[in-house]
Amino acid sequence: MKHFIALLTDFGLNDHYVAAMKGVIYSIHPAATVVDITHGIEPQDVRQAALTLEWCCDDYPAGTVFVGVVDPGVGSSRNAICIRAGKRYFVGPDNGLFSRIIAREKSCVIRKITNGAYFPKSASPTFHGRDVFAPVAAWLSRKDIFAQLGPILSDPALFRWPEPVLRKNAIVGEIIKIDRFGNAASNISKVFLDVKHGKSAFVKLEIGPHRLDQIHRFFNEGKTGSLMAVWNSSGFLEFASPNASAKDEFGLKVGDKVRIVFQ
Amino acid sequence: MKHFIALLTDFGLNDHYVAAMKGVIYSIHPAATVVDITHGIEPQDVRQAALTLEWCCDDYPAGTVFVGVVDPGVGSSRNAICIRAGKRYFVGPDNGLFSRIIAREKSCVIRKITNGAYFPKSASPTFHGRDVFAPVAAWLSRKDIFAQLGPILSDPALFRWPEPVLRKNAIVGEIIKIDRFGNAASNISKVFLDVKHGKSAFVKLEIGPHRLDQIHRFFNEGKTGSLMAVWNSSGFLEFASPNASAKDEFGLKVGDKVRIVFQ
Amino acid sequence: MKHFIALLTDFGLNDHYVAAMKGVIYSIHPAATVVDITHGIEPQDVRQAALTLEWCCDDYPAGTVFVGVVDPGVGSSRNAICIRAGKRYFVGPDNGLFSRIIAREKSCVIRKITNGAYFPKSASPTFHGRDVFAPVAAWLSRKDIFAQLGPILSDPALFRWPEPVLRKNAIVGEIIKIDRFGNAASNISKVFLDVKHGKSAFVKLEIGPHRLDQIHRFFNEGKTGSLMAVWNSSGFLEFASPNASAKDEFGLKVGDKVRIVFQ
Repeated sequence: MKHFIALLTDFGLNDHYVAAMKGVIYSIHPAATVVDITHGIEPQDVRQAALTLEWCCDDYPAGTVFVGVVDPGVGSSRNAICIRAGKRYFVGPDNGLFSRIIAREKSCVIRKITNGAYFPKSASPTFHGRDVFAPVAAWLSRKDIFAQLGPILSDPALFRWPEPVLRKNAIVGEIIKIDRFGNAASNISKVFLDVKHGKSAFVKLEIGPHRLDQIHRFFNEGKTGSLMAVWNSSGFLEFASPNASAKDEFGLKVGDKVRIVFQ
Repeated sequence: MKHFIALLTDFGLNDHYVAAMKGVIYSIHPAATVVDITHGIEPQDVRQAALTLEWCCDDYPAGTVFVGVVDPGVGSSRNAICIRAGKRYFVGPDNGLFSRIIAREKSCVIRKITNGAYFPKSASPTFHGRDVFAPVAAWLSRKDIFAQLGPILSDPALFRWPEPVLRKNAIVGEIIKIDRFGNAASNISKVFLDVKHGKSAFVKLEIGPHRLDQIHRFFNEGKTGSLMAVWNSSGFLEFASPNASAKDEFGLKVGDKVRIVFQ
Repeated sequence: MKHFIALLTDFGLNDHYVAAMKGVIYSIHPAATVVDITHGIEPQDVRQAALTLEWCCDDYPAGTVFVGVVDPGVGSSRNAICIRAGKRYFVGPDNGLFSRIIAREKSCVIRKITNGAYFPKSASPTFHGRDVFAPVAAWLSRKDIFAQLGPILSDPALFRWPEPVLRKNAIVGEIIKIDRFGNAASNISKVFLDVKHGKSAFVKLEIGPHRLDQIHRFFNEGKTGSLMAVWNSSGFLEFASPNASAKDEFGLKVGDKVRIVFQ
């Protein structure tokens, strides 16, 4: 059986931080396969980290250990935690980074990482990625030490995630992510729409001053340079502009209000 | 035997897209080794993707499966294809991305990917990288399913590649790529020069207003800050500036005309 | 036993250069595990490359082969070298890139790479990363060919590294690295301070016009937006600004003088 450790940080790729974490992991577990989710989270943007993790973690094999390090409170009294959710593990700071995982996996178990057997006594107070999270993930990928890591934590840090709201004749949500192509994803999922409203046709979409009267299936169905909407590959309503950047052409940004208006 | 899957996309490294593809691949074929060629192709720049792929694919072991995803037409009626060229495979959209491979490998075989046994029924119409190309590549790296993927495609999409032209006393080409160092590679290969013109000495090189009277062997042979030419490591005429960027210092850009003038 | 090859270059991630090196390595040694340290060194910044390598190489397993390619003199008469330092190997140009390794590993052995059995005769004079360093590293990770690579080199290129100076009542150093977060690391190590001065309390820190009266343990101990100092995770005095960039907020840059003033 192969053991995967998937890393997500805000360390960027130009310094030695990510390389140090990988060296530590391979020193403890040479047979592990380390995968980069991304290291390009904007410094300390815990929310984007949480979303990026959520939108790919289900694609990974059972047993994968995810390590998330977006950690402005490193060295302080914030806890280091490990979560077992289904057959996957999540290791990182207790600062809301795993809010989305905790929220959706009702039966997940969360432990504080306190057992010094799995990380060096001399852990640097400014680099738990290398000195706490990497070694714990490496050990965890070698054998099931989850129960030994430390005591159960029952009140993890959670942050408020913007959720769509059902109004009389509309669903109101907001843009939560802009990707490399300038596509703007909202927090309104197809599931939310179907459950709350049924599958009846909507009248129009509104985002800022823009009005759209349909949701396309794929980008090229839209007219080049126009603003259009699709259900994105994670199941959320997304605004795009074929062969252009909806962000640049239409000034979309995170936090913009989105409305689906019904008859 | 190790199985390599090499990825080239325009997804960038900051979103979850590349990570999702890797998760899918490892879920199907945990023993695969996934290598990143680049994810930094400018959005939808199929031509740069084709060139980048061509300039490294021969360095990879036999059996390597290359996945190329620069795919503005995702979800539309454009075909998904798999090419067997020599002992390597190429998986991606039929949009010209593999033009260079198809052009040079006369005996390559191209198949449409239509057999739903190798990708999920619920493939997202906006993310074939995750839902079609990644799983097909993973299965292909596990066992030889090439013949099962779908019917032969005899008229793949090809784009016009700028080719050098032989004039009376000159070869005329153009700049096709600028790299990170600001070096500007042309489409004039050493092979083209030798075949078309023989090995006689040229008189001078012209690029824009600049005149050069020799081709150096390596960068440091030139004077710091001067414009110089070398045969690059892929066999093409390239303009550089020692310890500086020829792009920035001399304003070179893709499409600039290049002439080798003979006596 | 797993074999690790760790790459550090200034090639960036958008061209085919890194991918070509990996293809060559895997073709020679399919079972190798290739790890990226970084490819984001500023073009030809040998000093930053040396520091980045030093700050993570000890985290890697014994037997790891490090390949460093920041190589403005590629193709010239500068030597290609391989260093055995403890149980690790370093492969790259003899241009100072490994100065820090050589300086601290008194018993390291340095060889010129001259044995053409381990790299292609047709090595491109502009891309030794692909044609010399990658194949040598791949062979070295397969079996111990160190002694066969070429003759001992006794006078490697070394560059002057800025070292802190002990004055009457102060240690004077300078900023040597700014990281992604805008944290500014100096060349004054905790070891230097303890050895030169003992563990007595200092009076203040000076950097440019700024005066600090303590060294914090971790970033969040400081006040958001203030300038503060910590011992960083590599053991050096570092200036930071909690939840902000010390570089941007306080204009810190490489070369800035730093003073620890004693009573």
